[in-house]
Amino acid sequence: MQLSKARIQEHNQPLLASHQLRLNLLSEELSERGVAVRDLIQRLVDFQVAIPSWALGTGGTRFGRYAGVGEPQSLEQKIEDVGLLHALNRSSGAISLHIPWDIPENAAHIKALMQEHDLAFDAMNSNTFQDQRDQQHSYKFGSLSHTDAAVRKQAVEHNLEVIRYGEELGSKALTVWLADGSSFPGQRNFRTVLQNTYESLREIYAALPADWKVFVEYKPFEPYFYSTVIQDWGTSFLLANKLGDKAYTLVDLGHHLPNANIEQIVATLLMEGKLGGFHFNDSKYADDDLTVGSIKPYQLYLIFLELVHGMDDPQTNNPPISYMIDASHNLKDPLEDLLQSVEAIQLAYAQALLVDKQALEAARADNDVVGAQEILQNAFRTDVRPLVREAFRQAGGALDPLGLYRKLDVRRQLYDERGVGIATGL
Amino acid sequence: MQLSKARIQEHNQPLLASHQLRLNLLSEELSERGVAVRDLIQRLVDFQVAIPSWALGTGGTRFGRYAGVGEPQSLEQKIEDVGLLHALNRSSGAISLHIPWDIPENAAHIKALMQEHDLAFDAMNSNTFQDQRDQQHSYKFGSLSHTDAAVRKQAVEHNLEVIRYGEELGSKALTVWLADGSSFPGQRNFRTVLQNTYESLREIYAALPADWKVFVEYKPFEPYFYSTVIQDWGTSFLLANKLGDKAYTLVDLGHHLPNANIEQIVATLLMEGKLGGFHFNDSKYADDDLTVGSIKPYQLYLIFLELVHGMDDPQTNNPPISYMIDASHNLKDPLEDLLQSVEAIQLAYAQALLVDKQALEAARADNDVVGAQEILQNAFRTDVRPLVREAFRQAGGALDPLGLYRKLDVRRQLYDERGVGIATGL
Amino acid sequence: MQLSKARIQEHNQPLLASHQLRLNLLSEELSERGVAVRDLIQRLVDFQVAIPSWALGTGGTRFGRYAGVGEPQSLEQKIEDVGLLHALNRSSGAISLHIPWDIPENAAHIKALMQEHDLAFDAMNSNTFQDQRDQQHSYKFGSLSHTDAAVRKQAVEHNLEVIRYGEELGSKALTVWLADGSSFPGQRNFRTVLQNTYESLREIYAALPADWKVFVEYKPFEPYFYSTVIQDWGTSFLLANKLGDKAYTLVDLGHHLPNANIEQIVATLLMEGKLGGFHFNDSKYADDDLTVGSIKPYQLYLIFLELVHGMDDPQTNNPPISYMIDASHNLKDPLEDLLQSVEAIQLAYAQALLVDKQALEAARADNDVVGAQEILQNAFRTDVRPLVREAFRQAGGALDPLGLYRKLDVRRQLYDERGVGIATGL
Amino acid sequence: MQLSKARIQEHNQPLLASHQLRLNLLSEELSERGVAVRDLIQRLVDFQVAIPSWALGTGGTRFGRYAGVGEPQSLEQKIEDVGLLHALNRSSGAISLHIPWDIPENAAHIKALMQEHDLAFDAMNSNTFQDQRDQQHSYKFGSLSHTDAAVRKQAVEHNLEVIRYGEELGSKALTVWLADGSSFPGQRNFRTVLQNTYESLREIYAALPADWKVFVEYKPFEPYFYSTVIQDWGTSFLLANKLGDKAYTLVDLGHHLPNANIEQIVATLLMEGKLGGFHFNDSKYADDDLTVGSIKPYQLYLIFLELVHGMDDPQTNNPPISYMIDASHNLKDPLEDLLQSVEAIQLAYAQALLVDKQALEAARADNDVVGAQEILQNAFRTDVRPLVREAFRQAGGALDPLGLYRKLDVRRQLYDERGVGIATGL
Repeated sequence: MQLSKARIQEHNQPLLASHQLRLNLLSEELSERGVAVRDLIQRLVDFQVAIPSWALGTGGTRFGRYAGVGEPQSLEQKIEDVGLLHALNRSSGAISLHIPWDIPENAAHIKALMQEHDLAFDAMNSNTFQDQRDQQHSYKFGSLSHTDAAVRKQAVEHNLEVIRYGEELGSKALTVWLADGSSFPGQRNFRTVLQNTYESLREIYAALPADWKVFVEYKPFEPYFYSTVIQDWGTSFLLANKLGDKAYTLVDLGHHLPNANIEQIVATLLMEGKLGGFHFNDSKYADDDLTVGSIKPYQLYLIFLELVHGMDDPQTNNPPISYMIDASHNLKDPLEDLLQSVEAIQLAYAQALLVDKQALEAARADNDVVGAQEILQNAFRTDVRPLVREAFRQAGGALDPLGLYRKLDVRRQLYDERGVGIATGL
Repeated sequence: MQLSKARIQEHNQPLLASHQLRLNLLSEELSERGVAVRDLIQRLVDFQVAIPSWALGTGGTRFGRYAGVGEPQSLEQKIEDVGLLHALNRSSGAISLHIPWDIPENAAHIKALMQEHDLAFDAMNSNTFQDQRDQQHSYKFGSLSHTDAAVRKQAVEHNLEVIRYGEELGSKALTVWLADGSSFPGQRNFRTVLQNTYESLREIYAALPADWKVFVEYKPFEPYFYSTVIQDWGTSFLLANKLGDKAYTLVDLGHHLPNANIEQIVATLLMEGKLGGFHFNDSKYADDDLTVGSIKPYQLYLIFLELVHGMDDPQTNNPPISYMIDASHNLKDPLEDLLQSVEAIQLAYAQALLVDKQALEAARADNDVVGAQEILQNAFRTDVRPLVREAFRQAGGALDPLGLYRKLDVRRQLYDERGVGIATGL
Repeated sequence: MQLSKARIQEHNQPLLASHQLRLNLLSEELSERGVAVRDLIQRLVDFQVAIPSWALGTGGTRFGRYAGVGEPQSLEQKIEDVGLLHALNRSSGAISLHIPWDIPENAAHIKALMQEHDLAFDAMNSNTFQDQRDQQHSYKFGSLSHTDAAVRKQAVEHNLEVIRYGEELGSKALTVWLADGSSFPGQRNFRTVLQNTYESLREIYAALPADWKVFVEYKPFEPYFYSTVIQDWGTSFLLANKLGDKAYTLVDLGHHLPNANIEQIVATLLMEGKLGGFHFNDSKYADDDLTVGSIKPYQLYLIFLELVHGMDDPQTNNPPISYMIDASHNLKDPLEDLLQSVEAIQLAYAQALLVDKQALEAARADNDVVGAQEILQNAFRTDVRPLVREAFRQAGGALDPLGLYRKLDVRRQLYDERGVGIATGL
Repeated sequence: MQLSKARIQEHNQPLLASHQLRLNLLSEELSERGVAVRDLIQRLVDFQVAIPSWALGTGGTRFGRYAGVGEPQSLEQKIEDVGLLHALNRSSGAISLHIPWDIPENAAHIKALMQEHDLAFDAMNSNTFQDQRDQQHSYKFGSLSHTDAAVRKQAVEHNLEVIRYGEELGSKALTVWLADGSSFPGQRNFRTVLQNTYESLREIYAALPADWKVFVEYKPFEPYFYSTVIQDWGTSFLLANKLGDKAYTLVDLGHHLPNANIEQIVATLLMEGKLGGFHFNDSKYADDDLTVGSIKPYQLYLIFLELVHGMDDPQTNNPPISYMIDASHNLKDPLEDLLQSVEAIQLAYAQALLVDKQALEAARADNDVVGAQEILQNAFRTDVRPLVREAFRQAGGALDPLGLYRKLDVRRQLYDERGVGIATGL
């Protein structure tokens, strides 16, 4: 289904007066505090987060999956879903594809469809954590890090293939999430598999087009339960440094040990100019892949503070970051879940933009711990929803994307169109 | 396939001399230290741990499953697999069934087969964490704790059905692992769902035959990622106490938050006479379901110390515990994995039996922390493999169950018999 | 130093117009959403959280302490400090004493001083985790759980003494934080020490005045590093149940394993009518004792939701809860830290009160996970600072307690009065 | 007190026959398995672990300290204590000093004393986590990372002073444990403080003598509770790489987030030639600083496997590692605790040396997960105490160091000599 601008405006109309009132009051208050509200809203308008193709269907756990309905059955339908999200919030203007789940049969057709929905291609994702039907070698015991050179070669070639698909479509980056690891002490030689991984990545890196980047993701555990080859940011950073200027670390919020200070990792990578990609989600226990901001919204805000202050720093030598939502929707309608996630991201971004950087640095210089905390909390405690709604509106989206989605009963329409088939993904 | 006693003896023959030599030396040494070696070995002979029917096939993660071969395709074949394990180590003389995966079509036939393999039925397991094909209500949002009474009723009735199957076969206990929980704050009312759970369990409890027990399992997370209705031993204990004398807590090694002191939980439950079941496995990060003893063998030993000292204490009012291995075999041949697990259990049990309880209590009375640690470590550092091998042998098993399994190339034979079908399970 | 109402009003005066404007706008908005704003503010006015006497001085870590200045040197000065806080925010109208640090030399005089500051006595705290100078037996290896009956007796008698001091002053509860534990496997017999603890507590319980309660605190580790006798809520609950109707569990936010779902524990205890005390603080890694709301404000809010909904439920059979801040101030001025903590508590309370309970229960009944999350987040995202400020104001406090504290340069005045002596505490 | 070789031999005499018997049997068995027992024992003889001067006294927690007796009151007495340990086990032939706790008044005298006890100087340790009496600037808000250049300068100069003391004595390395961090979000600018730290370290590095190394330690939290400047191995590695060839990472077993795979970190650092120092201890919850091997002996063994295989690999470009025990003794006699720690280290080392590297690599090449686990467990389950005892004996130490220590009633003698004064340390 398509969502016309007229339909959105019609939805916004009755909400506008109340929205404008609140926005004005907040703007006034913020202006008094020295915030350039107009610029701030423009930054929210400009902020775009990619949606991965595999997040449009219902996810599952190892114990099973409770299937949803109306899930996209083709790449075209996935693009339509993201197009719908983007029409609603104007903040999700990119899609991240996964090969082999999203092999485009006709690149020109796909690109035209993307243009129609005003969408860009984010990073391409390869898959060497599952065996495909006609695959010669199994990845059960590893892919890029495998002890057997033939398996490594197959995995490298798969990544090269993914790059080729991405080139056809106009993507500019490859994300390598290497699931490889071990589940038992002794199973693998840590040094050998890291060396193998480096050499495989080097072959992939060599094939990268001149204007491409490669993002090296890290994760402490799952699907292996004793070790993961790229277990933490340090390992990813080590590899990215060895590979070269086009290689970067990718941070996924759910890929850390309990209590990790993720905002500090973000700051460090920005300082080193090596933060390439960022995957949003939320979690309480492990890689829970929950809706962004649903568990630890303050941590999300603290991370955005680092992203904003790091990227705004004229001394920073970090390229623009690829932002993506990487969540799994086991219980919620995937599109509703993604609308909640995008809103949570924009709220955290708006709160981070509110922080008076100069005052904060002054408090820090004085070691005024209480004062610095007050500055952070004042921004976080501000109700910034009017700013985010205004950004949605200015960009042509709905003041209340989730409300409109529900009012239109989108899922029912998708069900009528598509039935109960399961989308590709986990 | 069947494994004759003659075949086992034939395998043991060339190993015997070397085994006897080591056993004698160790026995001498232990006797000098006051250990009643013969009695100790008899306790190892007597110790039996159940194998769950779902652990006989290859497991998977949410990212996929790398299928094995020769997996059992029927309840009969599962019994044969456990029979084979038991023939090898004589320590796994029970099977724990899961309904609906193991519905017996002909109970008499199944019981005869069990007798043939010298196996007993351990606790029955119900399944309300997945939807079955012809099921009226979905468990997506809960079962025994569901907000809708009709769903709760369906889940209760399923448990009653499981009891009936168990009665037919001669089981004496029901294990309720209630996966119910929530993945987002606010999703459910903690108090309502706990109350619902209690009431559902009460109905199940009311239907328990006079000589049955019910085990209430707990787990902090997964498959839900924000809360689990029965999240910890405290909640299980609370429910078991309210239910009555036939209700007990079940401890699964993988179902705890990071760093939990599980041995203390075991001791507390034993003191209260409420430890009904125990599920063995090992883990590093979450509910990893790895081979017993593969990650934290010292913790396993400390737990056995509590089990031994708790159960041996004449003041303890705890019934015999149902021991089961609850692991998932993603990378290893399931039967090899189970052989390793049973051996690790017997080794930890043997080490625990070595501890000089009197000397330990004397050190404790003196607060001789160094001395108490020495006593524990001396037992743990002893190489008790000769004792465990001797127990296997005396009971009619192989001195080296895994070695014989590999020598016989059992998996290849099972493959020839059964092909590549996937066993029921996760 | 004393803070007159006139001084406070003088401070409020210039802030009032702006405050009133925001309050009115928010009140209007909330009223439209069906919130009874006046009642809500009254509940904030009524809410009181106790300040422990030991939180008025600078705390330290095992690596040392960076001393502050102007710390209270006597019980009288501690009361003055809490009086000052209470004058500022009118929400901290109680003090929790610690024996032997706060032995009153003249109870009548102390009570008069308390009345002067409009303060009440919260629970009394005993100390069996440190040796006092003239103490016969050491607590190095335990107190209420010690293997030696003489040590247990001494610890019991200390608690009886604390009750007597409390009676003199008008307290109505005793908090037992039992640090007892072990640092090495084998050091202690889990069952023996738990039994000893129960028996010691029984003696203390027997000495409780008729209208008193005893709160049993739990903690997983520190100052012992392998086990703690009362390691979790389950153990505390077990003991409280055995002791009787006057015994309750006390929850301290920092006393849980990583990722524990504390709000669910709170809900369970409320359902069972056994939540007696609650200690506020915040933490990222362990028992960090940081400013309330500084790390996980959303978790704080979720806990308040349970407290509000649990206590408001007519079916709940739980007595009023003793709320206390139990934080340590290593880097911040203790009084500033406490002002921040009280404000964070009131904000979370206000947010919890905003939640439309009926709508939430309707969403839960429908398993509308997205809707339930929206309801929770809508309340949390609301800027409730005007409500809290108004509550402070209505009760006679400052609109901006921390601002006034800083404007008055209170710490400098205290320094002039008291010098650099270190307050009793950790 | 001094311990003569004659006294040790006298102690060994009655134990020798039984020891020899067991050693012979084990040697035979191991020889059959292809182990070069003589070489293995020689490696145990050669292995030396340093004792830090601050571990010779009783430690404490933030809740207090239960003082011991007979603690060393001077640098000379500390050297005597280490000399005593070394006489007993011949494996602790080095001491690691801490400035300002161990400022040598007469270097020549100290060096002579060291020679007398056959001891070497391990790395020197600086202290910028505490304020010293006559110190101009406080380290409350940081030292090498402080926002104020004057504080950084003071901290740098302290480190230069430590190097000078080390040069006088003959040490060859400086360990920098930088406690600097923050306890509240916003308190510090992550990038600024990391940059400051790097620049301070650069100044220290510039002052390093040509044959010295500097070890950069990392730790996730404590004494600060929100962030630590050098929070993980990745940050330390980043700094060490920037500093140059004489800079290395130092791994302390207790300085990791829950569940971290430390053995993999060790392997990675060895592969990169950047593992400079290693601090042994054990822990269950946080930086518990417990006796080595008392909680997770299997993890210790897995780490030793990486150390052995990494250092033995001809391709490894890592210098010899500085090994030290960094534990705190709150409950045990410090010397007994250290004897237990050294023994646990030697046992783990011996087990690691038992592993048939070739067979392990063959199993890995085949992805024989079961087989690789068997190889690891076979070595771990072997009772290697006879090998370690023999190494002690061959080197001139006691067969049973702890037993002799207790028999001699060393602590009582030290008490008689030294009384109850508290040693410098935490």
